[in-house]
Amino acid sequence: MEHALRALLGDDGVLPGTTRAYLTDATESRNIRGRADAVALPRDAAQVRDTVAWCYKHDVPITPRGGGSGFTGGAVPLDGGVVLSLERLAGPPQLEPERWRAHVPAGVTTAELSRRAREEGLLYAPDPGAAEQSQLGGNIATNAGGPHTFKYGVTGTWVTGLELVLAPGELISIGGPVRKDVAGYDLKSLIVGSEGTLGIVTAAWVKLLPAPEAQLPVVAFFPDVETGCQALTTIMASGLVPAALEYLDEIAVAHAIRAFPGEAPRDPAFMLIAEADGSVPEAQRLRAELLEAMAPGALATHAPEQRGEIRELWRWRSGVSLAVISVRGGKVSEDIVVPLEYLAEAIIATREIGARHDLPACSWGHAGDGNLHSTFMIDLEDPAEMHRSEQAAEDLFSLAVRLGGSVSGEHGLGLVKRGALAQQWPGPAVALHESIKRLFDPKGLLNPGKKVANR
Amino acid sequence: MEHALRALLGDDGVLPGTTRAYLTDATESRNIRGRADAVALPRDAAQVRDTVAWCYKHDVPITPRGGGSGFTGGAVPLDGGVVLSLERLAGPPQLEPERWRAHVPAGVTTAELSRRAREEGLLYAPDPGAAEQSQLGGNIATNAGGPHTFKYGVTGTWVTGLELVLAPGELISIGGPVRKDVAGYDLKSLIVGSEGTLGIVTAAWVKLLPAPEAQLPVVAFFPDVETGCQALTTIMASGLVPAALEYLDEIAVAHAIRAFPGEAPRDPAFMLIAEADGSVPEAQRLRAELLEAMAPGALATHAPEQRGEIRELWRWRSGVSLAVISVRGGKVSEDIVVPLEYLAEAIIATREIGARHDLPACSWGHAGDGNLHSTFMIDLEDPAEMHRSEQAAEDLFSLAVRLGGSVSGEHGLGLVKRGALAQQWPGPAVALHESIKRLFDPKGLLNPGKKVANR
Repeated sequence: MEHALRALLGDDGVLPGTTRAYLTDATESRNIRGRADAVALPRDAAQVRDTVAWCYKHDVPITPRGGGSGFTGGAVPLDGGVVLSLERLAGPPQLEPERWRAHVPAGVTTAELSRRAREEGLLYAPDPGAAEQSQLGGNIATNAGGPHTFKYGVTGTWVTGLELVLAPGELISIGGPVRKDVAGYDLKSLIVGSEGTLGIVTAAWVKLLPAPEAQLPVVAFFPDVETGCQALTTIMASGLVPAALEYLDEIAVAHAIRAFPGEAPRDPAFMLIAEADGSVPEAQRLRAELLEAMAPGALATHAPEQRGEIRELWRWRSGVSLAVISVRGGKVSEDIVVPLEYLAEAIIATREIGARHDLPACSWGHAGDGNLHSTFMIDLEDPAEMHRSEQAAEDLFSLAVRLGGSVSGEHGLGLVKRGALAQQWPGPAVALHESIKRLFDPKGLLNPGKKVANR
Repeated sequence: MEHALRALLGDDGVLPGTTRAYLTDATESRNIRGRADAVALPRDAAQVRDTVAWCYKHDVPITPRGGGSGFTGGAVPLDGGVVLSLERLAGPPQLEPERWRAHVPAGVTTAELSRRAREEGLLYAPDPGAAEQSQLGGNIATNAGGPHTFKYGVTGTWVTGLELVLAPGELISIGGPVRKDVAGYDLKSLIVGSEGTLGIVTAAWVKLLPAPEAQLPVVAFFPDVETGCQALTTIMASGLVPAALEYLDEIAVAHAIRAFPGEAPRDPAFMLIAEADGSVPEAQRLRAELLEAMAPGALATHAPEQRGEIRELWRWRSGVSLAVISVRGGKVSEDIVVPLEYLAEAIIATREIGARHDLPACSWGHAGDGNLHSTFMIDLEDPAEMHRSEQAAEDLFSLAVRLGGSVSGEHGLGLVKRGALAQQWPGPAVALHESIKRLFDPKGLLNPGKKVANR
């Protein structure tokens, strides 16, 4: 197989299937690792097409791979075959600043796209957690969100066109630089979030926005979950529109607080981070209103105004996940969503589920979107704990479905949640889902074993 | 057929197929009228399901119908069968103001939803042209846009959940009140914009936003298209984000100007309408910046600040379409989209295409989205003109495709543009499009003859 791929991609375009870095993703933190026969590193979209065509002809499974920062094992090859990494499709994004848009190869990192946009005074709004590592293609495959999704929407909101390879080996475009298009069914949105199971994105047109002049976060610490969630309700009922609305529960705060770049009260049970953005006067006005809305019942507030302090705060927020991993060496972290009115209930239930399975648990995440990162901290060396954490995750999914929510708000299903969709969707919708998969991928070779609706 | 439907829907749930109001839509302005065997008026989602089940069992075509304000004949029954009007699914929208969302039956008019939201201090952002007539179900079926789409996005942006009837007669839900969900393929977006050819929406969950305190329009008149389009570029390059960015060309202005609620210069060749919104100080700041960006080269500007004047301006803007119809009694109006840099070219080409086919032509529309309402004014009594207008429309579609745009930005394909997708999409994508139709509607009974990709 390596030999055949070298003929297509050149010697530098193929690595041995045993190359460890390509056999896992962020699920390394729960000991997940796959097996591949070869790693393909196509240089351009035509080589992606040729690789897919070769694999499709020879019945070889294809596991597409972006930056490998996913939490669901979506990029983990299960049963051999080819890992197809898009990392070399990384030519710089082509920005058209006056038209608020860019054409971006799939392998460009999220951080690189954001930086280039900023250099032109523009904002690429999606801000998933591992921006230096994740790539636009992977963000599209998972329809990635982030803290600022609350105001700005998920990745798909910003994609107007896709270039992609379909089975059995066709390179096509859907959409483009146009801002509106209702001529066909929305195939673009069908591909976005399909986790490499319907086609492989090689480039995208994305919309940009003028960057807000100011971004002013407001942090508040609370004595309990209810008071904190009440502040969230007050913000929304007051008609304030923060750019982000994040929370940490008691245990998440406890594990991360030592590095907090500011003063924090002793043992808060809940933390809320809101951000005001816009023109300088607008962001300042909103900052003041957020402070007023969040102060009642708060133990303390913290609202940095210096650029350096603000950057430190968000850097600290990005580090929460690592701080939680470091407690016991591993974690199982899910991304359930619930209707807003059940946020407090889901936060409390996460801890209860942990207790029931004898696992320390915590949660943090995107409060304004009702999107929790419900997490069990585990010892990777203890198989019994690993097993209990899987059962705990199942309980989380049942909780989300029972509350009218979703088993996944931003990570997708990948390997670790495959089959979970059938809990949440009615039978006819699940059947259509599976039929659509067969339509796009009749041989079942595109990221096999991932995102399947039925287990 | 009427008899069988009465057994399902009661005597008041069925009208004769000859009931004229149900046989056309806004394509009445181009003499399009269909033929039906019966009109079904189900009272609730269960009756919609029962009607679809009966039709599917008896191989009877179903033409779903909202407010009948569409421009493509999407609601026109072609070959008999049942017109299924959702107008009685009009129970009031259930608003949850503190959570910025509503559950809305498909037959609620767009204006009713907007009014209810406003009463709670909230904004339902989509603002298609015939809001008093159009219904949410129809807005979803076409993924309707409007002037404020520039800042706020099309209808689908605001839909988080759908209740719908699928063939052969299943009532299901996808999504719900949650703000994020990436568990399954995005079936919701596949249904949105599918023009009743994949399923029939009976209700939706929509997101709302706190209503902006102020909405301040700024109008500028220009001596030519290029100077006007340059103003648009200046606005975007300056990083200003208006809520709307509309234009009228010379002929559209000429026909509508008599009723203009303000002073206008003699014979302007181009008109731009921008709107600043947000908090009062923010909207005022942006209004001033828009005036500054639009003034260079303008013949005159007009920026009303009184609520009544502002309402008059937007009412006038809504009346442009009728003013143009009134010139010759009929019009063929398409909704092509082009990348922003080709807006001026498409505006000029619309006039040239009209001249080539000996038809007076004009255009207006959503400048910031590159979305033109390119229009030929016709005499409905003259079959030769009708024929020429169809050829002119074909030239428009070729223009849009040649410029890298779309044949439809907000009206959909319906009857009058069916088959046009194949001009714009590559073969494999068109084939998938047709396969998806067969998957959802194997008997081809859901709005037959509409939106088909190949002619």
